[in-house]
Order: sequence, then C-alpha cells, then structure tokens
Amino acid sequence: MADTTTALRVSAQRLEEFIARAFQVVGISAGESKSIAELMVRADLQGSEGHGVFRLPQYIRRIRGGAVNIKPRIRVVREAAGMALVDGDNGMGHLVMRFATERAIEKAKAAGVAWVGVKWSNHAGPASLYAGMPPEHGMAGLYLAVGNANHLPPWGGLDMLLSTNPIAVAVPAGEEPPIVLDMATTVAAYGKVKTKAQRGEMMPEGWMMDRDGRPLTDPKRANDGFLLPIGGYKGYGLALIFGLLAGTLNGAAMGKDVVDFNADDVTPTNTGHVIVAIDVEAFQPLAEFKRNVDTLIRDIRSSKRLPGVDRIRLPGEGSHAARADRAKNGIPLPAPLAAALGQLAADLHIAPL
Amino acid sequence: MADTTTALRVSAQRLEEFIARAFQVVGISAGESKSIAELMVRADLQGSEGHGVFRLPQYIRRIRGGAVNIKPRIRVVREAAGMALVDGDNGMGHLVMRFATERAIEKAKAAGVAWVGVKWSNHAGPASLYAGMPPEHGMAGLYLAVGNANHLPPWGGLDMLLSTNPIAVAVPAGEEPPIVLDMATTVAAYGKVKTKAQRGEMMPEGWMMDRDGRPLTDPKRANDGFLLPIGGYKGYGLALIFGLLAGTLNGAAMGKDVVDFNADDVTPTNTGHVIVAIDVEAFQPLAEFKRNVDTLIRDIRSSKRLPGVDRIRLPGEGSHAARADRAKNGIPLPAPLAAALGQLAADLHIAPL
Repeated sequence: MADTTTALRVSAQRLEEFIARAFQVVGISAGESKSIAELMVRADLQGSEGHGVFRLPQYIRRIRGGAVNIKPRIRVVREAAGMALVDGDNGMGHLVMRFATERAIEKAKAAGVAWVGVKWSNHAGPASLYAGMPPEHGMAGLYLAVGNANHLPPWGGLDMLLSTNPIAVAVPAGEEPPIVLDMATTVAAYGKVKTKAQRGEMMPEGWMMDRDGRPLTDPKRANDGFLLPIGGYKGYGLALIFGLLAGTLNGAAMGKDVVDFNADDVTPTNTGHVIVAIDVEAFQPLAEFKRNVDTLIRDIRSSKRLPGVDRIRLPGEGSHAARADRAKNGIPLPAPLAAALGQLAADLHIAPL
Repeated sequence: MADTTTALRVSAQRLEEFIARAFQVVGISAGESKSIAELMVRADLQGSEGHGVFRLPQYIRRIRGGAVNIKPRIRVVREAAGMALVDGDNGMGHLVMRFATERAIEKAKAAGVAWVGVKWSNHAGPASLYAGMPPEHGMAGLYLAVGNANHLPPWGGLDMLLSTNPIAVAVPAGEEPPIVLDMATTVAAYGKVKTKAQRGEMMPEGWMMDRDGRPLTDPKRANDGFLLPIGGYKGYGLALIFGLLAGTLNGAAMGKDVVDFNADDVTPTNTGHVIVAIDVEAFQPLAEFKRNVDTLIRDIRSSKRLPGVDRIRLPGEGSHAARADRAKNGIPLPAPLAAALGQLAADLHIAPL
C-alpha cells in the first residue's frame, strides 16, 4: 500500500459528487445516485479499496450494458415476524442493501432479531457497510453474501463453483469503537487481486494456487488459477454454507449460476445477501452490554504479546483509523485509478474529479 | 485414527444405557439421564470422538464437584417474536441446548426465523448436534458457542482470552444427506488435542504454537502453548465475534470469565450458545429448495479434481458415513477410553459397559 501515501488525495465530498454525477448521467435518479455515491465513498473512507470508487467504471459499464436495472422497484416479497425476503428487482446493490438493512433494523425493534434475505440484487460494496448499520441503533449486525464471481473450487477440486462469500459482523461498544469483522472466506478477496494487478505488484504465496496445485503469485495470471480458502477445507465449508444461506435460500444465484461480473457487462447477477439485525436490548440493557464489550476490547488490547509484535488489534480498528485519516486528509487515489476515473469522465462527458 | 479400526466396538444402545446409568447414579432424573445419553451417543455415532462418551468421566467429575446443577429449572427468561433468551440454570448443556433448539424450531414456525440465545449452560457436545435438529423440520440450523476453555490468544498475543468458539450450520437436502458444517475457529479443536494425548500420538505442525512462536507438536505439552486460529487474524476475528454473540450478548461467560472446565471441577462455566432456526418455507417452497441443494451437491461432487485427489467431499459427509458404519458395527472404543470407562463404572458402583 506504499503508493497510497504519495497518491493524489481527494476529499470525500468531491469524490461523492463525482460518483453521483456518473450514475445520474446513465439514468439513475438524483436521490438514488447520491445514495449509492455516499455508500461507495464510505467504503473508500474506511479503506475498503477494492470496493469503493475502484468499482465505478465497472458499475457504469454494466449499467450501460443493460445488466443492471436503473429504475428498480425494490420491495419485500415475503414476510413474517422474524424475517423478510427482499426482491431487489436487479437494482444497484447499494440501494437494495440499504433498503434491506433498514427493514431488518425496523423489524428487529419489534421482534428482537430480524433476518432479511435478499435476491435479485447486485454487488453492494464491502460487507461491513451493512453489518455496520445496526450498531448505530444499539443492535448487532450480521451480513452474508454470495460473491459476484466464482474463483474458489470445492476443496480438492478445480471447477469454480464458489465465490469468496464474505461474512461481516458488527457489535456496538461504549467508549471504544465498535468491533467490525469483515472478511472473505478466502485468504484474499478477489478485489485485492485486482488491486495488486492494477498497481503492478505481486501477490504473496498463499493467496492463489494454479491448476496443478502450485502457488500463483502474479495477479496478471489470476485466470490460470483460483483463490485459496482460509483453513483449507474449513474455509471451503464456510464459503459453501454462507452461499447456501445468502444465495440458494433466497432464490438468488449460487454455484454454477453465479455470473462473473468482472467479465460480463450484460447479464444480471441475481446476487443474494442476508442481513440480520439483533437488538441488544432484547437480551440485556444496552449500557451493560457496551460496558462488557469495552472491557473485552481492553483485555484483548493489553494482552501480553508474542516476540516481535508491537500491538494487538481488534477487528475494525484499521478501518476506524483509515476513516479518521481520510475524513481529514482525503481519500488517496493511486495514479492508475485516477487515470481510469479521468477516462470515465471523458467517456460520460461529465465534469472530472 | 488407525487404532479405532482394531478397537473394541460397542453398540449404541449399550453405550447409551451405560451413560444413562452413570448420570442417574449422580442424581440426574432417569428421563434427563436418558436424554443426555442419547445426545452423547449421537455424537459418537457421527464420529465426533472428542465430544461423546470421551467426556463422560469429566462430566461426572464436575457434577460430583458441584460445578453442574443436577436439578435445573431450564426456562425462557426473555422473549420476543424473533428471539428468546434461555437460562439453563447451570444444567447439563445437552438438556439446555435440546430445550433451546426445540424453542427455536417452534418459534420459527410462526416467525420464519428465530434466534435463541442461551446463558448458564454447560458443555453440550458437538455443535452439529443442535444445528442438525432444524433440518428435521425443513429448516436450516445455525449454532454458535463459547468454548469451555481458553486456548486461543488474540492474534499476536499470548493471553488466553478466547476459546475455539465453534460454528455449525446444517441445511436440509432432498435425496442427498443434509449439508452439515461443524468447525472450530481454530485449526484443531482442543478435544482433538486431548484425544491425541490419550492415544499417545503427536500433533501435526500448525495445530499449536508455543509462547516463543515455535510449532508445538507434543499434545502432552499443550499447556506450554496455544491453539492457532484458521486463516490467522481471520480465525481470531471469527472466534471473537462468535464469542460476543454467543457469550457476551447472552450474559454468559466470555474472555477472562471463561472457566477451564478441563482443569476445574467445582466452578460453574456459565456457557453461552446461540441456536438459530430458519424455516425454509418462509423463503420458498421446501421441495424447490431441496432440489436446488441436491443439484449443488452433485455439481460439487462431480467437479474436476486437483492432481492426486480421489474425491470431493461435502461438509457432513464424513459424519454421515460414520453414522452408517457405527449404527451397524458399533462404536469403536480405543483401549485407553475403555479403561477410563471401566474405572468410572467401578468408582460409581454401576454395571460396566
């Protein structure tokens, strides 16, 4: 990430306005364009570089290719006290997931816990964007999704039947920042591979393997191999099971039906997600819970350390620090990304960044 | 596992009767003793060797030490449409979790999805026992728990603040056996370390590390080191977050409060669990879901394979095969375990196996 320190920096507001302009010019309403832009910039602010403005040229390409519905009727199609199923009508994933997460939070206020499944959505950015919303309402959030490209075979296999299906869980704390876990079930997410390729960097061993079982470290050769799951067969099991819950159960794509949205600009992905909102007050007083989470965070942070380790981190700490830095100093744009966004502005005939 | 092929085999029924005798003689009612024994034998039948009768001497020791309540009043203490919180009153974990899982299934019939948290429970055997119950009712099951001994430090740390906090998810299939993932968030569960020690075998590198960061392979030296999480900091994150949801949120032990039930026969553990029942029919027709799961299973099983791999497995397949074999041919009892159970029978003055 060395190049981000010398990269051009752009303010969140300028970036958000640019992104909104791009979506508006391809036909999305002003309000929805702003909503998507705000979530994409939130991704960049928290350092989720493979999931923010980096994806904009691709999103626009897919909208122009007819793969994404610019006027979706996002709605609840099935509902019971503890669940809902949302049909995203092939709208931008950010809009669909914001809708679904708001429903989950609203329902959890009455039901204590609410599980909202989503079908006919699209790539929605980093998992933690949505898992992180319930904590603003004194709730824990849990998010699962089917990734939008299969780069993971079953353990021991070669057919690309699984994606990096992520999990994110966010839990509110008191004086400490919330704990926010956001992880792919593969050692690296495919977005990170794409970022490495764009920057001309090599990948460490352990991220990918080729079809003969040898380590693959050149991100430009990514199509010659596949991602490796965390913990071997365990990560394969997690990717499979999260895909069953976020995809198959919702009537969304899973397995062979997953569309590679990196390579295809015309086919709807029918992306599936799950967001669960868990109201802490249904279990115990929120203040008590927050105190206990703070205590746990401090116990962990003050743990004795292995030789050579300078500090112990909590999940979400890196994002929290990135947000503080970037809100103040701007979002770094590596040169290849800045060039791609300049090209996009020219193609769309909109004012550049 | 070579020694199990030559080990003494005992029928499930004989083993269940023996276990029930042991619990009855220490004061648990006949009905509840049978209920615990049935679940423990189910663990042995499915090959969960670290979690079945292997634990009996320890369970009995803790009951005699006063750590476990033999006459618990297990009850729902908080409830809303989509959730319940169960207080296990420090009863045997199997009884508490059977109660909680039945509540979750019952509630999910009305609410579509029901999340049941549990506090003041105890070790309840393998996670898949409970995640596996909702599929018998056309539901998916998700189980989380706080383990009963901290053998995992935060990533980069040395203080034992986390356990192997497991996750299990089970999904019904049609003609295929259900998919059942049951995994610790560490590379190996501590029960497996104990099994290795009892059998006089060494552990593979990667299961444990010593306090200087070196691989630890002798299970008798387990106290000199700690378990390693899957995927490094990712597995640490999963263990932490599952512990927050299953422990902290329910008012159960987490972090420093976790009691090492391997070393302590007198202190209640206040074990926390979560069971979520997800009614498939709330999302789509069950028959359709089962067909789609079958298709996915077959696509995975028929995947092309890496050189040297003879077949692709689905999570739960090993347990399914063990169950078929052991129901017919009996449950293998390695000699050290058979000796321990003989000693237990003598101590309790009950008829031996």
